[in-house]
Amino acid sequence: MSTKKVLQHVDKNMNMLIKDLCVLIRQPSVSAKNQGIKKCASLVKNTLKKSGINAEILSMKDYSPIVYGEVKSKKNPNKTLLFYNHYDVQPVDPVELWDEDPFSGKIKGNKIYGRGSSDDKGELITRIRAVTSFLKVTGDVPCNVKFVIEGEEETGSAHIEEYLKKYRKKFSCDGVIWEFGHVDSKNRPIIDLGMKGLLYVELSLRESKMDAHSSLAVLIKNPAWRLVEALKTLRDSSGKILIKDWYKEVQPLAKSDIKILKSFPFDEKEFKKEYGIKKFLGNKTGLEVKKSLVAEPTCNIAGIVSGYYGEGAKTVLPAEARVKIDFRLVPKMNPKKQAMRLKRHLVEKGFGDIEIKIYHGEAAARTNPKHAFVSDVTDAARRSFGKYLLSISSAGTGPMHAFTNILKAPAIAIGSTHVFSRIHSPNEFTRIDLLKKATKCMCLILDNFARSN
Amino acid sequence: MSTKKVLQHVDKNMNMLIKDLCVLIRQPSVSAKNQGIKKCASLVKNTLKKSGINAEILSMKDYSPIVYGEVKSKKNPNKTLLFYNHYDVQPVDPVELWDEDPFSGKIKGNKIYGRGSSDDKGELITRIRAVTSFLKVTGDVPCNVKFVIEGEEETGSAHIEEYLKKYRKKFSCDGVIWEFGHVDSKNRPIIDLGMKGLLYVELSLRESKMDAHSSLAVLIKNPAWRLVEALKTLRDSSGKILIKDWYKEVQPLAKSDIKILKSFPFDEKEFKKEYGIKKFLGNKTGLEVKKSLVAEPTCNIAGIVSGYYGEGAKTVLPAEARVKIDFRLVPKMNPKKQAMRLKRHLVEKGFGDIEIKIYHGEAAARTNPKHAFVSDVTDAARRSFGKYLLSISSAGTGPMHAFTNILKAPAIAIGSTHVFSRIHSPNEFTRIDLLKKATKCMCLILDNFARSN
Repeated sequence: MSTKKVLQHVDKNMNMLIKDLCVLIRQPSVSAKNQGIKKCASLVKNTLKKSGINAEILSMKDYSPIVYGEVKSKKNPNKTLLFYNHYDVQPVDPVELWDEDPFSGKIKGNKIYGRGSSDDKGELITRIRAVTSFLKVTGDVPCNVKFVIEGEEETGSAHIEEYLKKYRKKFSCDGVIWEFGHVDSKNRPIIDLGMKGLLYVELSLRESKMDAHSSLAVLIKNPAWRLVEALKTLRDSSGKILIKDWYKEVQPLAKSDIKILKSFPFDEKEFKKEYGIKKFLGNKTGLEVKKSLVAEPTCNIAGIVSGYYGEGAKTVLPAEARVKIDFRLVPKMNPKKQAMRLKRHLVEKGFGDIEIKIYHGEAAARTNPKHAFVSDVTDAARRSFGKYLLSISSAGTGPMHAFTNILKAPAIAIGSTHVFSRIHSPNEFTRIDLLKKATKCMCLILDNFARSN
Repeated sequence: MSTKKVLQHVDKNMNMLIKDLCVLIRQPSVSAKNQGIKKCASLVKNTLKKSGINAEILSMKDYSPIVYGEVKSKKNPNKTLLFYNHYDVQPVDPVELWDEDPFSGKIKGNKIYGRGSSDDKGELITRIRAVTSFLKVTGDVPCNVKFVIEGEEETGSAHIEEYLKKYRKKFSCDGVIWEFGHVDSKNRPIIDLGMKGLLYVELSLRESKMDAHSSLAVLIKNPAWRLVEALKTLRDSSGKILIKDWYKEVQPLAKSDIKILKSFPFDEKEFKKEYGIKKFLGNKTGLEVKKSLVAEPTCNIAGIVSGYYGEGAKTVLPAEARVKIDFRLVPKMNPKKQAMRLKRHLVEKGFGDIEIKIYHGEAAARTNPKHAFVSDVTDAARRSFGKYLLSISSAGTGPMHAFTNILKAPAIAIGSTHVFSRIHSPNEFTRIDLLKKATKCMCLILDNFARSN
């Protein structure tokens, strides 16, 4: 009965949610550039406090701070749900492709635009508002609620593991609701029970002390050419990685996983239209497409640069070349071991002089579909969105492995981020109707979770 | 007798030369970015005028203007020497590697720093000052003198041919002194009788409508990967170009050319030290090194860019990738034909979707070592610098072919630019002692040329 009133409170107070979200978007917090991180942490802490949630800033060394929030339940103090989110955002480049200032929080109809509008400030605000609605209507929460809101997710959550180990007791919980959650084009929330891992590296080399006139290209080695030659040894044109033993630990998907995968819809035509492509890499179709998203390791050039790339022509022989590569990993692949294999490969192929900088490594994670927590979430999703999709793993990466491993709690991703909402790209947006449904879903998850065993 | 006084005038008035040069350096004139071009043309015109040279601006369409200068000889009006120079400069990127503002014209001891200090404002000023010294001391010049000073050299002199054709009569002459001239580390001017050609292209491709989250790298093709694959088909690691028929018209060097080449010194150790390299591309040594500089076609990556190349990590799948390539050409190679071969190659290798933008093409040129003009120049070089080196061709490129072809006059490069003066690179400089010697050399060339048949 009271839960119904809580959901009504969500409905009636969407203007408060939108207002709070726009304030968060307007505060830049680009972790890759250390832009506005501390200011945003402080803003998030204040947002929690004014929403009735106890909040504090947790700091370690020179790491970006974590904003920690907590509300103790009066009626049910023995069960705890933890919301994991992040307040940092991706860089806005290429900024010239945005229609609006990326930090304006511009509202157009059902959409709110801005970097972080979906990923992850939009998700965060739905969870805060769900707690607020319980507090306003019932004066309590169904179970204890904790918020762990970090500031380094977009650069690979380099220190979340250290934080989790240090604050293991403070963060102890019985279930984790993950920072993101996608909604497909038919407004079905995708419930992800796992995440891919990631190894992010930068390869660089310098062939001479300084840039030279390109007439000297007959004598001085060009680092861009050598990088091209090295890169060509890493991957074939179908996407297959050519590094020795790269797939050694990769397990085939279980039959039960394939069954979940088969029932998972994927609209190839719509996807292709959205991205303006005609064929998928390697001409994949059907189940292969779905399998690849959850279970195919990748080697992606995220950025490459050397020499002159401005307008017009410059006849220069560059001294230096750099490439950023992100490798997505699947369960059982160890990021450190894969990095060693990459290094060995380059040495063996004659590129031992190429410097490898490891930005971060993250193992993949999967939660068992049979856990009771899964049905708490699927029921809430059905009641708030009317439908849902179950997925064995997201195609994306996050430190889920650290949470499930250190806090010994299952983790599930569910949220409000539309699949074409351009996260990490220009013109990122969130949808107000989905924010509302997700907020209600969080209320129902709290309610279900508090009751179940 | 009077020539001796002219040379003394040069000696006594070096402060004027330095002052005029620094004023020119302080006026940015980056043709690749259309920065300051018209202002610099106007400044050059005024510099000519105040030096006693009739000057005017020649314009065609929206091309950068040519500054034209002329002094008629009273005593010898039937012979004309033309100085070809350019007032535009290379871009200053990477600007953070400059010790000073690239446009400051900072003097430190014997060096003047700044973009264009050597290439080509330094060269231009020696020629202007040589004419001024004759006018001041003798009230005349030994023969007619013409200046053709263009503003698009650093972007490939795209319209010099059109200008030469339009003003064929105005520019008519009996010999051309080229815009640059290198001086080796033992202060020997290098007299170049030819230049390599150039084909400068940009390859680009787009695989999707927009940048995507890199988790989608299992499905969406990455243009950076496809560019790497396409590039790898163009060249092997020794520098050999793999495009079909690329070398078809290339002639072996004549025995007489090899003889001149053999007598041409090249200090490999010093060169390697300057650029901080241990070995030459393809492990070349001795005559191979010298041959390559004048007679080896190249395929150089002048710039490559895709995705995120800023600080830190961004997990992005770029929508677009671009690479700028400069191919140096040798005599008999036709830039248009070579561009067609490149295009055909990409289509045949499955990269027909890669867009090719041709920035410019320039054929190579060579002047006959037996021409009388050559001995006018070598004698002047010997008397001003005390020594000289004769080279069948520069490793660099310029529109020499257009001049020799349209004006039907021999062209020779000689000047003041020290071989390690970092032209096209950060911290470009010129040396005051070499500017002085080059100015005297120009006086002696005028004198010799006026007398010879």
